[in-house]
Amino acid sequence: MNGAAGKLLEKFNKREAVIGIFGLGYVGLPLAVVFAKKNVRVIGFEKSGKKAEAVNEGRNYIGDIKPEDLTAVIKSGALTATTDFTRIRECDAVIICVPTPLDKFKKPEMKYIESACTDIGRYMKKGTFISLESTTYPTTTENFMRPIIEKESKMTLEEDFWLCFSAERVDPGNKNYHTENTPKVVGGLGETAQELGMAMYGIAIQTLYPVSSPRVSEMVKILENTYRLVNISLVNELALLCGQMNISIWEVIEAAKTKPYGFHAFYPGPGIGGHCIPLDPFYLDYIAKNYNFDLTMIHTAGLINNQMPHRMAVKISFALNRHKKPINGSKILFLGAAYKPDIDDERESPALMVIDEIAKKFADISYFDPFIPEVTTEHGRHYISIPALTKEALAGADCVVITTNHSAFDPDFIVEHAQLVVDLRNTVKKPSPKVFKL
Amino acid sequence: MNGAAGKLLEKFNKREAVIGIFGLGYVGLPLAVVFAKKNVRVIGFEKSGKKAEAVNEGRNYIGDIKPEDLTAVIKSGALTATTDFTRIRECDAVIICVPTPLDKFKKPEMKYIESACTDIGRYMKKGTFISLESTTYPTTTENFMRPIIEKESKMTLEEDFWLCFSAERVDPGNKNYHTENTPKVVGGLGETAQELGMAMYGIAIQTLYPVSSPRVSEMVKILENTYRLVNISLVNELALLCGQMNISIWEVIEAAKTKPYGFHAFYPGPGIGGHCIPLDPFYLDYIAKNYNFDLTMIHTAGLINNQMPHRMAVKISFALNRHKKPINGSKILFLGAAYKPDIDDERESPALMVIDEIAKKFADISYFDPFIPEVTTEHGRHYISIPALTKEALAGADCVVITTNHSAFDPDFIVEHAQLVVDLRNTVKKPSPKVFKL
Repeated sequence: MNGAAGKLLEKFNKREAVIGIFGLGYVGLPLAVVFAKKNVRVIGFEKSGKKAEAVNEGRNYIGDIKPEDLTAVIKSGALTATTDFTRIRECDAVIICVPTPLDKFKKPEMKYIESACTDIGRYMKKGTFISLESTTYPTTTENFMRPIIEKESKMTLEEDFWLCFSAERVDPGNKNYHTENTPKVVGGLGETAQELGMAMYGIAIQTLYPVSSPRVSEMVKILENTYRLVNISLVNELALLCGQMNISIWEVIEAAKTKPYGFHAFYPGPGIGGHCIPLDPFYLDYIAKNYNFDLTMIHTAGLINNQMPHRMAVKISFALNRHKKPINGSKILFLGAAYKPDIDDERESPALMVIDEIAKKFADISYFDPFIPEVTTEHGRHYISIPALTKEALAGADCVVITTNHSAFDPDFIVEHAQLVVDLRNTVKKPSPKVFKL
Repeated sequence: MNGAAGKLLEKFNKREAVIGIFGLGYVGLPLAVVFAKKNVRVIGFEKSGKKAEAVNEGRNYIGDIKPEDLTAVIKSGALTATTDFTRIRECDAVIICVPTPLDKFKKPEMKYIESACTDIGRYMKKGTFISLESTTYPTTTENFMRPIIEKESKMTLEEDFWLCFSAERVDPGNKNYHTENTPKVVGGLGETAQELGMAMYGIAIQTLYPVSSPRVSEMVKILENTYRLVNISLVNELALLCGQMNISIWEVIEAAKTKPYGFHAFYPGPGIGGHCIPLDPFYLDYIAKNYNFDLTMIHTAGLINNQMPHRMAVKISFALNRHKKPINGSKILFLGAAYKPDIDDERESPALMVIDEIAKKFADISYFDPFIPEVTTEHGRHYISIPALTKEALAGADCVVITTNHSAFDPDFIVEHAQLVVDLRNTVKKPSPKVFKL
């Protein structure tokens, strides 16, 4: 490798490259810290002035980062954040960590990637390496990013710049695997890009796994999350059937787990939450249409999960019915707004969808979440968490609904003081006539 | 526990009980050997005189049994096989290991369980413990077996006999897990039955896992295999899309496997074979209809897999097309008839379904399988394996189709001598212009 690519490779190997990270969210900021800890200069690009300021002042806002790690790399000067996108020209490499949500019609919202590529194309210097980490449909790097960057920069791929796709695999709250020690799949567009990608990520990430193209790399991430979506959907559907057959799906899953090979347990719940699993498979669904291909498994998963919040509302209604109460006017206390236990993230949380379903039937709603002081639902309802889970709060509710299994919730205390419990997360293990389970 | 149940429990604990095993196939015979090895007297009931004779002469016909183990328990007299069902009256316990196939319309074929229950009800003595191991729909033990046995025997459940469900988890060819060391889920009908079931299986099986009812136990087995069906179906569908997007699904799966949590790899193939995974979920589908419930995931899996043999035939046709050849009159050599590698079982094998698809388009078909000397397809075509996989056999075929990845197949040798290879199992790892992959 020689010319511009050779020089860049040398900079990576000597850790003299300046790395720009686009988007300082739950993916970008941990990545920026990991690179900066290796004494590489990192510039974090962030549209939100508030976030950039917080980073520069060493105020951490991401659960998975140790605050002292952020403070250290800010003090050392290795990491700086900025809202000034012209500073892209200072970077030898840029890693894009922007969101890729779906719009209301489950169509990929590509505007954040588009905007990042436009900025990069406009300001980058010759010889820049660009890697995308955002989950997206296969062919995005080649067919969506490349033309935008070439048009904005008037530069030529594989001469003046290189492209790569390497998805983030961040699992918020995971105690064992974080940015540094989670193996990373790297797919460069062309051999030079691949070599550069391996060299750059090799600075910060312990294990890399090269694949033959960006589209393979893009597909890997989609497969991982489609696997999860389909399996949660399957178990949700079986949970509904088991409910009718007087079989505890939770007992079934625990027993199935004793099979020492060929089984992986998934658990049912009021729906699928978070910013990956409910979304990523629909990226694939989007591009599949371009190939006249219908992904029936993903459609079926959508069909099951779209109805889960409604089915949970029915479950709450039928539980109240045992006490001769309607939803209308009943006091319903929801425990947990987060989409998974022990995190402070309520994005795409099924808890909020169930709340919306129940709220529109005129219930008197309150909630408690030790991690989330206030929430706004998709339908625009705003709630403030009750300050503490007291006996009085439990006893005062006509029905207590457990929507998130935060480890702080004490099932014995809840069952003792509540009139009626609908447990959608198998939090309550002891049988009780007060408790209705999913 | 006292009375008849107490006496039976004591017999189990002292290993003085006589255990009858109904059906000496790939489930029943290994189980009979495992009990007999513990010096418990076992009577094997088998409708086929040939099989009973083979067992009594110590001639083993099940791959997962060590021949010396069978010989030992026959010599010691611990195990005898019989076609005389009146000898059920000698047994303290009977374990039913009969097949539960589906008929041509994917309806459960319950006649083998029915016939076993009729025989048992007719001949059993008072105080008999009965356990079913055949995969079946939840509620079978309570609602299907119980009435037949009560009617035939004129005895009363939980007074004169006890019922239990504990599914076999046999995985033919598995080197690590076999009957003795695979944990077993036990669901008795009532507390006494549960205690008796744990005592009886505890004689022979290392790890037992009690559940609260037979229906939970029945559902566990269905969940395990539905999980597998759905995931193979998902990856089959993704493989078809990847084929159109110029992405190697095999490369994608290997890369996804580097994710250290939350992913379990399944591999695509020409369809789903064997006598469990393609069948078991449709048992659940059958009973679900009784609850006005549609299992959309299982339906979708069926939809995908039913078309796989046809899609594979199209793949073969399009590969031949590159060589300007039609299927009609072309010599097609299939490698592998078994449904999975290194076993001698071609039941429900997708290889045979692909052969049927290609045969009806007037191809000149031959096959080679070192484990299976002759086969009859579902459409009634009969083939005899070519004696050896020679250079001449490979070179003489217009197309070689790898349908089973037996470890004896040498990909280099195959690719060197074949004109054209359609590899449905990722047997060939090195890229070659001769090779077309699923």
